[in-house]
Amino acid sequence: MSTYDAPLADQLFLMNEVLGLGEIAGFPGYEDATPDLVSAILEEAGKFGLEVLAPLNQPGDEQGCAFENGVVRTPDGFADAYAQFVETGWNSLGAPTEYDGQGMPSLVSTAVSEIWFGANMAFGLCPLLNQGGIEALTAYGSDELKATFLPKMVSGEWPSTMNLTESEAGSDLSQIGTKSVRDGEHYKITGQKIFISYGEHDMAANIVHLVLARSPDGPEGIKGLSLFLVPKVLVNDDGSLGERNDLRCVSIEHKLGIKASPTAVMSFGDDGGAIGYLIGEENHGIKNMFTMMNNTRLSVGLQGVGVAERAYQRALAYAKERVQGRDVDQSSAAIIHHPDVRRMLMAMKSQTEATRAVAYYMAACLDKARHHPNEQVRQENQAMADLLTPVVKAWSTDTGAAVADLGIQVHGGMGYIEETGAAQHLRDVRVTMIYEGTNGIQAADLVGRKVARENAESIKALISLMKNDLEGFGSDNRHLSNANDALTTATDWIIATSPTAPQRVAAGAVHYTRILGLTLGGWLMTKAASRALELTQNGTGDPGFLEAKVLSARFFADQFVSQVPALLELVQSGANTLEDLRDGHF
Amino acid sequence: MSTYDAPLADQLFLMNEVLGLGEIAGFPGYEDATPDLVSAILEEAGKFGLEVLAPLNQPGDEQGCAFENGVVRTPDGFADAYAQFVETGWNSLGAPTEYDGQGMPSLVSTAVSEIWFGANMAFGLCPLLNQGGIEALTAYGSDELKATFLPKMVSGEWPSTMNLTESEAGSDLSQIGTKSVRDGEHYKITGQKIFISYGEHDMAANIVHLVLARSPDGPEGIKGLSLFLVPKVLVNDDGSLGERNDLRCVSIEHKLGIKASPTAVMSFGDDGGAIGYLIGEENHGIKNMFTMMNNTRLSVGLQGVGVAERAYQRALAYAKERVQGRDVDQSSAAIIHHPDVRRMLMAMKSQTEATRAVAYYMAACLDKARHHPNEQVRQENQAMADLLTPVVKAWSTDTGAAVADLGIQVHGGMGYIEETGAAQHLRDVRVTMIYEGTNGIQAADLVGRKVARENAESIKALISLMKNDLEGFGSDNRHLSNANDALTTATDWIIATSPTAPQRVAAGAVHYTRILGLTLGGWLMTKAASRALELTQNGTGDPGFLEAKVLSARFFADQFVSQVPALLELVQSGANTLEDLRDGHF
Repeated sequence: MSTYDAPLADQLFLMNEVLGLGEIAGFPGYEDATPDLVSAILEEAGKFGLEVLAPLNQPGDEQGCAFENGVVRTPDGFADAYAQFVETGWNSLGAPTEYDGQGMPSLVSTAVSEIWFGANMAFGLCPLLNQGGIEALTAYGSDELKATFLPKMVSGEWPSTMNLTESEAGSDLSQIGTKSVRDGEHYKITGQKIFISYGEHDMAANIVHLVLARSPDGPEGIKGLSLFLVPKVLVNDDGSLGERNDLRCVSIEHKLGIKASPTAVMSFGDDGGAIGYLIGEENHGIKNMFTMMNNTRLSVGLQGVGVAERAYQRALAYAKERVQGRDVDQSSAAIIHHPDVRRMLMAMKSQTEATRAVAYYMAACLDKARHHPNEQVRQENQAMADLLTPVVKAWSTDTGAAVADLGIQVHGGMGYIEETGAAQHLRDVRVTMIYEGTNGIQAADLVGRKVARENAESIKALISLMKNDLEGFGSDNRHLSNANDALTTATDWIIATSPTAPQRVAAGAVHYTRILGLTLGGWLMTKAASRALELTQNGTGDPGFLEAKVLSARFFADQFVSQVPALLELVQSGANTLEDLRDGHF
Repeated sequence: MSTYDAPLADQLFLMNEVLGLGEIAGFPGYEDATPDLVSAILEEAGKFGLEVLAPLNQPGDEQGCAFENGVVRTPDGFADAYAQFVETGWNSLGAPTEYDGQGMPSLVSTAVSEIWFGANMAFGLCPLLNQGGIEALTAYGSDELKATFLPKMVSGEWPSTMNLTESEAGSDLSQIGTKSVRDGEHYKITGQKIFISYGEHDMAANIVHLVLARSPDGPEGIKGLSLFLVPKVLVNDDGSLGERNDLRCVSIEHKLGIKASPTAVMSFGDDGGAIGYLIGEENHGIKNMFTMMNNTRLSVGLQGVGVAERAYQRALAYAKERVQGRDVDQSSAAIIHHPDVRRMLMAMKSQTEATRAVAYYMAACLDKARHHPNEQVRQENQAMADLLTPVVKAWSTDTGAAVADLGIQVHGGMGYIEETGAAQHLRDVRVTMIYEGTNGIQAADLVGRKVARENAESIKALISLMKNDLEGFGSDNRHLSNANDALTTATDWIIATSPTAPQRVAAGAVHYTRILGLTLGGWLMTKAASRALELTQNGTGDPGFLEAKVLSARFFADQFVSQVPALLELVQSGANTLEDLRDGHF
């Protein structure tokens, strides 16, 4: 039976010793985030994950969701677990205090989210989406809308969803056909949305749909879209629940994974129009929606990290207990002693740590962007978070899938049998490479909008920052230094090539994203190792744990960062052939 | 609905223009393999695949196998399709003529097998295993055993299985506990086997189990194993079917993929012992079994190729029909026009072609090993086939899974929905990295037994052969030339390091396998491109097809072969950290 222990020591080391949680807790607004409280929060989250969520992970996958007459039943235990989740206040951890949230730094809520995803990714998807809804409503909603909906969304009693995709509008939202018509103080919404995670379920009394729809008389394309709040159940003036709104779930999908998470086809306005309330201004739908998507993308990246961690734990446990073959001394050996199994486990461990470090680093940037006392620092960190968003989303999920795949391989034949649980991790995490914008779309965003923005200030600042650190790390940083040089070359090439040949840049975007992810990961792993050495010299901390940090960083540099210079060729060469290709050549 | 067209043009080009089928057809014993006949065979196989097997692929996955009271029901249509398969003689294509086989070259039966795997991998697994059984019995069986069983196995009426794995004996067959006791002219077999593909089913009147079991009084470990033929139904002296033998299917597995293929737990001898007949000599079980496994491993590699081809066809069809976003001229565009989708499709296409080329090259070596008139050439080619076996098995299946994974990504959100069919390809092909010896075991075999064998003659001959060809290819072979140099360095390192530090070599074995696969693939792709250029200059052949060969080779060199030099670091550096690791560091 697969289970999951939150990697508290790794998380706290990263937050406290590498990413400066202490400094962040000094910002006005984050004073509550003392080391003791943060540590207690993580410990409690770990307990909730282990005791409540993790045991439902595999049974939830086996049972899946059921759909009948418009009603969706989540697997046994999910509704009860969600009620406990709401009751114990987990949902409000990072939410603003003015709406009953606990206002914890993003760095803290990020660590807690990773635990939910590791314990039960399908479950964690519900609060993930709700988090995005809370952010959008907080930023753009009217006071009245906020007063009515935000406290219930923050508590989790009325979780929210994101209704973007339609059958002809996936990566290309300009094709959205869902309509809105003004009707007094609200709007009537009509149309069909697909791939709506938790679009319908039995875990809450109400569901708050955030719906991207065409404005009543806006321009064509993405500039004519508005964001609406469309509740499943209408809310009376006194805040009590009233009539059902004119929307329904038509069906749910049969998916490769996250089977405990209902993916709904939603129909709005079959009986004349669902009542919707405008969030922000008309025709600002895309902008408002992207506010929420940036943070959602960080969360999806964290799903990659969380599932990778769980897959690693599962594989490690199996490798310790499974005996096959002989050790060097001819005693029978657990497979963890076989060099190739050891290699796979270290690849899983070090990649998980590297993606965690980059995701948490982005969370720390978000905290500085929100609450750093200096305005310029705030701006710089927001720009840095924007730059990192597609990297965290794409690289962490590509890597999470690779780690889960290795997890299957460590199990040998047992990995292919569903009862083992290893295969579920790959099936589950595979969606993270696709949803909230495919990883190809993330890469296009990175090279097309983020790198060259504002004279490439953010990427150049990041490269300098990493370069300066290099010297402090000592002499054994050949791979990281080469990676940084390759990143610089690739970045310069993208900046130079984009204006005249954006298609050439687009053909290498995915590889550039990987270069940036690996270099960032290598940098932060080395920072962690460097700090571990310091602490060891000071005689502070668990020597075995600190040694492991150094070994993990070295393995990651040798086996992953070392590949970065060669990836430069991939960034630049893809277009050579693609330009000569006609459709008939396929 | 996903379907599959056999890639006849690609297959025939490779066989005729690159791998010298004409020469092979000149060997005594292969005279029937004229270009016209081979082309007709492939065309008929393509038709059978398209019309009979491919339509059962997705329904078979959805329905899966059912187990009740010891009886296994394969999905609707499978038994009928198998009856047709037997009736039309497909099973006997590569089998020896003295037992009613058609004696076609391995190069031809290899191409045909790829078609079965592309059309329906779960179905194709049954003849795949039977092929191995036929080879083992042909090589080592007594005349009497051959007379009784071979014709029925060759026709496919009594397909055979391989019973190796036990719950405590997976990669380590020395732990096999299944026992044999002499009982007159036969043996009594007792024990339990797991992961037995097609161990029980409703597609045939009898099943011929080849069972690896402990010899009555042999030594411990793998030297005390013998190979037995244990039929499901005993055969009377007149060749008719008699009583049920003392063996039964206990349960079938719930797997990630190939759900239409029953994976059985088999129990032998619950009522006193299943009657088994010795194949070859006592205690030679491992050697005899490996004879069959080498060819089975080529076939598993072909499963990687076949599924990759199908995944590519499915993704290509979707990319042509799915409209999202705008083209450069602002018209709405099928996603095949997006650079990153084009990159993914070319990665799928070129990798599929490269793995096909390497697998077929190995098949041509097998043909030369069997029927080349010169004894020395026969020996050299057998050694080359032995060397290539783990590469074809591991690299083709790693690559097949990577291609199927890209296939999901091309589909975006639809790729995650099972109805699309893209996800099934990944679920199915994932097992090929595991069964018939995990890819880690293949890599260990390559560096531990094959590379250094006989003073590394085969690998050195192969490297020279590739190096000599380089000059003939013209000037644009920077990547291939660098790859060959890296392969040479890696090989020298392995030969030098193995005697003193085999654990260091083992830690890099998987990466070395990849280096060899990529270099071989790049070489054969370049050979194909070179031949395509010649034919274009001669004005022979379809210019578009020939152009595509050149582009595909260039893309493969730029995007895959270019990475080989960097992999050298992975081969050599893995052990650095692993040697310092203690279990507590995980």
